[in-house]
Amino acid sequence: MSNPIGVFDSGFGGLTVARAIIDNLPGEDILYLGDTARAPYGTKTLPQVREYALECLDFLAGQDVKALVIACNSASSAVLHDARERYDMPVVEVILPAARRAAKVTKNGEVGVICTAATAVSQSYDDALAAVPGVQLTTTPCPLFVDFVEAGITGGPEVMAAAREYLLPIREAGVDTLILGCTHYPLLTGVISYVMGPDVTLVSSAEECAKEVYAELTNNGLLAPTPRTGTLRFLTTGNPERFAKLGRRLIGDYIDEVESVPLA
Amino acid sequence: MSNPIGVFDSGFGGLTVARAIIDNLPGEDILYLGDTARAPYGTKTLPQVREYALECLDFLAGQDVKALVIACNSASSAVLHDARERYDMPVVEVILPAARRAAKVTKNGEVGVICTAATAVSQSYDDALAAVPGVQLTTTPCPLFVDFVEAGITGGPEVMAAAREYLLPIREAGVDTLILGCTHYPLLTGVISYVMGPDVTLVSSAEECAKEVYAELTNNGLLAPTPRTGTLRFLTTGNPERFAKLGRRLIGDYIDEVESVPLA
Repeated sequence: MSNPIGVFDSGFGGLTVARAIIDNLPGEDILYLGDTARAPYGTKTLPQVREYALECLDFLAGQDVKALVIACNSASSAVLHDARERYDMPVVEVILPAARRAAKVTKNGEVGVICTAATAVSQSYDDALAAVPGVQLTTTPCPLFVDFVEAGITGGPEVMAAAREYLLPIREAGVDTLILGCTHYPLLTGVISYVMGPDVTLVSSAEECAKEVYAELTNNGLLAPTPRTGTLRFLTTGNPERFAKLGRRLIGDYIDEVESVPLA
Repeated sequence: MSNPIGVFDSGFGGLTVARAIIDNLPGEDILYLGDTARAPYGTKTLPQVREYALECLDFLAGQDVKALVIACNSASSAVLHDARERYDMPVVEVILPAARRAAKVTKNGEVGVICTAATAVSQSYDDALAAVPGVQLTTTPCPLFVDFVEAGITGGPEVMAAAREYLLPIREAGVDTLILGCTHYPLLTGVISYVMGPDVTLVSSAEECAKEVYAELTNNGLLAPTPRTGTLRFLTTGNPERFAKLGRRLIGDYIDEVESVPLA
């Protein structure tokens, strides 16, 4: 018996975080909540994002989760401090682990981040890297990338054209390290790596977040006993059938049943 | 209509490569062959490994695949040159892409690689990095890691103790970059990252190989038209039920049916 890890996102992108956690901790139960009824958060004001995200995190906390993962770049900086104050359990988000890794990896100090428009406006990655000596951040919103991933189009001329338009200016700016600052983007590492070329190292906010979850659970003695096969539950505030269909585009048959949660 | 990508491994580890390809290219058909009847290759001589691997690759080539992926660190260096000469299609393996990334990432030139005993003896990563100025390689075989992954044990005291025994000497050697030189190890990034600490960047041979597959297919005009949902076929020279059971430990329900192929 073990309490689940609560994973929250405004929609689907957090599923890449959930899967990275499952990969590393197959014995853990995962309770995923996607607030798809109110997604995308990018068009909302900061107070609205904070209200929605805390409502979702409150819901997960009420399900006896042992840790909370804010698997959403847009919500991470909006609610991290509130969540730390509000819940008596580890809270992990996606921005700080990726920023830390990028600061370690860069040699020339030129770091790029690609993200949604909302994350770009929030300047969350700027803040995360502000105290690092000698690091310059170039932020580029890539609004079409989420649509491509959710449509299952990650190769071919359209996505390549969009990637070149978004990424060539960053490449020409001389970045040697590029943060994937949206949890959808791990499914685009092929095209992103292709356009950026072999000299640029990609840092995945999803992957770095999962490592942080592992460390937090280990440090706090919260790992489930092994060997054990964890259970996966997927909840959505929106339409469960649509969530299952789009979610499977991201992480395949890890998603079986999807339950509806009426929030808001 | 599109021809499949042929992915070969001695056993199960290559499944992490296959999944990374699926993530980035969900429209591609994948034909995976695991030579589990003769695994592990680590206990075989180099001529034996070459014979078995080429037999498997010949089989895949006979199924009209459009590209071959050698998703096995033990077989990669043994047959890469033979495979390039033998097949008139792109051949991608797992060692060179990871070595290239590590050379880009390291700042102090101290690179580590963890791998099976067979890969360590082959000195494949030494060869791949030999021409890089200023890079020193520390190679550490981690024989128990594959067993832990296949048992579904990736957290807890046993795996932590093994990880500390294997990894603390590398950490003390001052490496700043660690290559996961076995395709099972992406499922251990949590514990490996935990023991190595935040100053060390991990490079996944599975992930880097998948980026190379994307680039090769793009450069050779071989991508399947999108949007399209690819099909996955899993073949084994061993017991299909065992393959399905262990394979699901690595990549979950991506594996449905497993077919038997009588080679050897």
